[in-house]
Amino acid sequence: MNDEPFDVRYGSLRSHERVLDFRSGLLTRHVEWVSPANEAVRVVSQRLVSFSHRAVAAIMYEVAPVGAGIQVSVQSELLANEQLPPSDGDPRAAAVLEHPLVAEYQHHDRLAVALVHRTQHSGLRVGAAMDHVIDGPSDLRTDSRLTHDAGIVTVATMLEPGQRLRLVKFVAYGWSGVRSLEAVRDQVWAALSSARQAGWDGLVTAQRDYLAEFWDRADVQVDGDAEIQQAVRFALFHVLQAGARGEDRPIPAKGLTGPGYDGHTFWDTEMFVLPLLTFTAPDAAASALRWRQKTLPAALQRAAELGFAGAAFPWRTIDGQESSGYWPASLAAFHINADIATACTRYIAATRDANFERDTGVELLVQTARLWRSLGHHDADGRFHIDGVTGPDEYSAIADDNVYTNLMAQHNLLAAADAAERYPDRARDLAVDSEEAAAWRDAATAMFVPYDDALGVHQQAAGFTGHQVWDFAGTPADHYPLLLHYPYFDLYRKQVVKQPDLVLAMQTCADAFTAEQKARNFDYYEALTVRDSSLSAGTQAVLAAEVGELDLAFDYLGEAALIDLDDLEHNTRDGLHLASLASTYVALIAGFGGARYESGGVRFAPRLPDGLSRLAFTIVVQSRRLRVEFQHKSASYLLVEGDPLELSHHGAPVTLTAGKPSKHPIPAMTPRPRAKQPAGREPARRRAADGTAVGTTASSEPPQAGQ
Amino acid sequence: MNDEPFDVRYGSLRSHERVLDFRSGLLTRHVEWVSPANEAVRVVSQRLVSFSHRAVAAIMYEVAPVGAGIQVSVQSELLANEQLPPSDGDPRAAAVLEHPLVAEYQHHDRLAVALVHRTQHSGLRVGAAMDHVIDGPSDLRTDSRLTHDAGIVTVATMLEPGQRLRLVKFVAYGWSGVRSLEAVRDQVWAALSSARQAGWDGLVTAQRDYLAEFWDRADVQVDGDAEIQQAVRFALFHVLQAGARGEDRPIPAKGLTGPGYDGHTFWDTEMFVLPLLTFTAPDAAASALRWRQKTLPAALQRAAELGFAGAAFPWRTIDGQESSGYWPASLAAFHINADIATACTRYIAATRDANFERDTGVELLVQTARLWRSLGHHDADGRFHIDGVTGPDEYSAIADDNVYTNLMAQHNLLAAADAAERYPDRARDLAVDSEEAAAWRDAATAMFVPYDDALGVHQQAAGFTGHQVWDFAGTPADHYPLLLHYPYFDLYRKQVVKQPDLVLAMQTCADAFTAEQKARNFDYYEALTVRDSSLSAGTQAVLAAEVGELDLAFDYLGEAALIDLDDLEHNTRDGLHLASLASTYVALIAGFGGARYESGGVRFAPRLPDGLSRLAFTIVVQSRRLRVEFQHKSASYLLVEGDPLELSHHGAPVTLTAGKPSKHPIPAMTPRPRAKQPAGREPARRRAADGTAVGTTASSEPPQAGQ
Repeated sequence: MNDEPFDVRYGSLRSHERVLDFRSGLLTRHVEWVSPANEAVRVVSQRLVSFSHRAVAAIMYEVAPVGAGIQVSVQSELLANEQLPPSDGDPRAAAVLEHPLVAEYQHHDRLAVALVHRTQHSGLRVGAAMDHVIDGPSDLRTDSRLTHDAGIVTVATMLEPGQRLRLVKFVAYGWSGVRSLEAVRDQVWAALSSARQAGWDGLVTAQRDYLAEFWDRADVQVDGDAEIQQAVRFALFHVLQAGARGEDRPIPAKGLTGPGYDGHTFWDTEMFVLPLLTFTAPDAAASALRWRQKTLPAALQRAAELGFAGAAFPWRTIDGQESSGYWPASLAAFHINADIATACTRYIAATRDANFERDTGVELLVQTARLWRSLGHHDADGRFHIDGVTGPDEYSAIADDNVYTNLMAQHNLLAAADAAERYPDRARDLAVDSEEAAAWRDAATAMFVPYDDALGVHQQAAGFTGHQVWDFAGTPADHYPLLLHYPYFDLYRKQVVKQPDLVLAMQTCADAFTAEQKARNFDYYEALTVRDSSLSAGTQAVLAAEVGELDLAFDYLGEAALIDLDDLEHNTRDGLHLASLASTYVALIAGFGGARYESGGVRFAPRLPDGLSRLAFTIVVQSRRLRVEFQHKSASYLLVEGDPLELSHHGAPVTLTAGKPSKHPIPAMTPRPRAKQPAGREPARRRAADGTAVGTTASSEPPQAGQ
Repeated sequence: MNDEPFDVRYGSLRSHERVLDFRSGLLTRHVEWVSPANEAVRVVSQRLVSFSHRAVAAIMYEVAPVGAGIQVSVQSELLANEQLPPSDGDPRAAAVLEHPLVAEYQHHDRLAVALVHRTQHSGLRVGAAMDHVIDGPSDLRTDSRLTHDAGIVTVATMLEPGQRLRLVKFVAYGWSGVRSLEAVRDQVWAALSSARQAGWDGLVTAQRDYLAEFWDRADVQVDGDAEIQQAVRFALFHVLQAGARGEDRPIPAKGLTGPGYDGHTFWDTEMFVLPLLTFTAPDAAASALRWRQKTLPAALQRAAELGFAGAAFPWRTIDGQESSGYWPASLAAFHINADIATACTRYIAATRDANFERDTGVELLVQTARLWRSLGHHDADGRFHIDGVTGPDEYSAIADDNVYTNLMAQHNLLAAADAAERYPDRARDLAVDSEEAAAWRDAATAMFVPYDDALGVHQQAAGFTGHQVWDFAGTPADHYPLLLHYPYFDLYRKQVVKQPDLVLAMQTCADAFTAEQKARNFDYYEALTVRDSSLSAGTQAVLAAEVGELDLAFDYLGEAALIDLDDLEHNTRDGLHLASLASTYVALIAGFGGARYESGGVRFAPRLPDGLSRLAFTIVVQSRRLRVEFQHKSASYLLVEGDPLELSHHGAPVTLTAGKPSKHPIPAMTPRPRAKQPAGREPARRRAADGTAVGTTASSEPPQAGQ
């Protein structure tokens, strides 16, 4: 205004508020700002990325003077090849390319602009267009300019007291790896037309309607800790945003929220993000798995190159090809195959989506099972081993009989044999005969699981518990994450765990462990786990709750939930930790709800920590919606619709009929001593010693005693 | 001649012979050649690289017409930056640099030329000079030219029948990483003067004298197989050439015979080459170990970077810095430290060189022992483990408790404690106190050695014998070496052995195994060993002989001995396999002689294969020369000089006094069945089924039945 850019780093802010409304899907900003030249202005903006219009975003921008009249110019831009801040060298951040896009088409027509660009190396074509609806004083002037990499629309006017300038900007986008320039161009112009046709109010209404339906299906209510309540909804909203309109495309580790990990997807999509989507937006889960199926040719080829049967899915990818060059992780982390298989069986169990099972599930299960059968081998005693692979914990590599891998492979092999039996025609298409299916069952049944008799705990992998324990006492606090300070060589050979591995196996393959084993294992691995990965706290919360350490589980829940809201890892600038956010949901339903769903049916063993008074949510089970509500002493289950449903409550069978709530007492529990973590790696306490809730270390509340 | 270049690829060769005379150290070439224009010439050349003059080589070149007179020009060049043939992509060959040398100085003075160059990146300065003595018809004309990278002296004359042109070329060379251009220049001019002063005849005489002394100390006589006799002398001669004038510099894997492995040195110098030098040219062994001592600062720094105490010597190096970027080999192959320690104790036992022990041995032993103590750890039962390291076998990596590594480390730890006790002043200098020495002894005593009770064999490393056995039957013959055809990932996780690892441990740590264990282990690992490394056959020969498979040992001896003479690996163009050649010597003295010397004393258990009738050699033991002679039924030991010597013959103690031969019968042995190798990887038979000697597959003799 008056030639002074609106930049809140200068002048002074009288007020500034940004509100993300999970109900409306609108991000609203209110600013009152005084320029260095002492002119005051109020800006209100609202923006949405439409759920209902798959290629549309929109912004409403309103400016008004506070006090004296002002001259304002509002610039609306469409920018390609914007200069990004340089990388700080963290290997987990993205590699920034200079000018990755080549301009192919630019056009403007009054207040509308469209640009089409192409990525330099991979030749993907991306188009974007914007148009504007402007409301303001009659003398306002508009102007537009166009360059290869930018379209700029400027609106200038004098605003007297009481006047305002309101600008609605519609943005449409589209991309393709195969369609022509003309096709992409026309696609974005068409999307822009549909946005203008809906109008701002139409888009806002559609957004709200879409979300109302989502929250009705998906909301998780948490009483007793408002911050956690807010955080879990934040998590649900962002995971929905990342997955809802994936449309047979991968869900990146950061969604579309930042450049971290270069937009690549990892196994945590299947194991952390898809559980949430399966129970709340199942179509999105199916879509992500159909994308995996689309990439089968690359996975089959990779397995063949390595000399194995079936499919070897990539550990890190954006297009189905392995994008990691670090072979102890990429090549050896075969568990991704079983993770995908489990995501299929989980989705099928929740939805009973027979079309998906026939068209996608069987093929994914069969090709991953084939990998396991050829990767493993029977020893002289008939036991089946999978040697020289890497499990989830990235501070170990290339080990024999990783328990997580072996148990997940076992599930994969059995599920493939079952699927082949249920769909004999599909099995025939895939050349599965009864000998092959028998070999899968045989390998699964004979699967070896290493156990340390002397310590009475499972070994993360063969030999693990004999390794030297990492010198935690001698590791300074600023040497975490360890991967940035110590050679992998030394991490690999010692007992130190980046992220739950054996503990994750106890969640996903719950029936392979007795309750006593789970408790001993949990304590043992807690003392070794440094949580240098954000794929930690959510899983630790689940197992802490299961073994009866509810306060510890609550602390881990807080860490998983607030990772981005409180920027606990100091890298939220690279994008949200989608899997950690999703694990908040899992920590609640599988942790305090005690839900276990991997084996097909569903069972609950609810127990709330002192910090929560009520937990209620809705999930999809066997294609029916189930509403549950847990309090400290009682649990209530309500089947919303459909045929009667069998479930288990603290080990007792329960049969639900639609519309009839079923209430059950929650058995008392003997508290047990809190497990020890490595020195300095304890989670922040979510509740002070006096029982009051506290914020995490990064929150704005002052630290309390006992923290 | 007559403007036609002498190139034996054109025209026709009437005769061509090259003779390397191990007694004189001269390479003599006789050629009779007819040019395409039908002019005949006889060329005789002789060349030597002087042992006595450390910086001098010389060539005598004689040309004479055969039949009609001819016009000849002889060109003598000094060439830098000569274009080398391009690499074929084999990772074991060298990376060829284009124009690696920068010219700094050129000068010519009549028939003398000198050049000084500097390496482009590392700044090493290298000088070379030549001068000529020419004898021929009085009308001969000489001419010399000089460029930045070449000096060329041309001699032209008409040779009538009966006349000849004789040219002696003296070459001097020198290099330095620190001295000035002028210093290097003057150094080569001075060396050239000394060569001219000695003259051709003087250099030839000195060469012969030097070698006469060497052969008197070092010759190994093998009766019954002339090819092996020749090969072992070839090996002795080349290892001497590589090591004799090392002068505290490393001995590269290829010596100076070719560009393979880029001139780098590996652990095989200590474990294969130094045994030969220790017993035949001990000063050269000491010199190579003093070079290791010189590189201690880099090894100490590397250990510190990794968080360990003491020294971490590089697996592959040319200057003390690790030159391998492949960490499962370079970083994790810590056994190099114990290999160096063993080379020290072996040298000290042979020579009783107290100065070396005090000045070099103690420090190397202490700093390597420190590494082991900090790398390993005690488990709850007190056993000492070394986890996550790579042993000699490059088809396994990053394993726990590699037997070779653990036993060699055990020796290293005990030797360090003993050395510190013997040299308390040096121990004080190195800050070794009695607590530290006690910790070394304790770790050594508690060293864990994994054993498979069910199979009754040692495990190469923990878990090894539980791995899947490589599919040898399904591996085509042209897929060897496996490393060029299969991913390391798959090699690492299966039972397949590139080169002896556990079997080498049974040689170098002989007392850690019973005779029965050795036999069972040998058979077990024979079935897994593909000999994709030339560091195989010599070691297999030693253990085959020890367990009583003398014919198999003889076959392996043949393979080790003829690796370069018959170009068995098809890469002798990259340089000689020095370690394999040296292992021929070890196969004879430790294999058929049954010599074991690693533990300090020496013992023999001679047994000759049917293919040999006599084996005689001289070695240095406890600073005294010992001549031994073995026949099928008897052994004779003669101490040449010095105090009485104790040794063991087939387990019985023998005391030798100087000058008195001591004869002993060789006990009879029960033959045992020949061990099986992987299909297609059997060594070539050295003797046909009818008992006659046969050549190897690559020899010029026709294949015989039974081969």
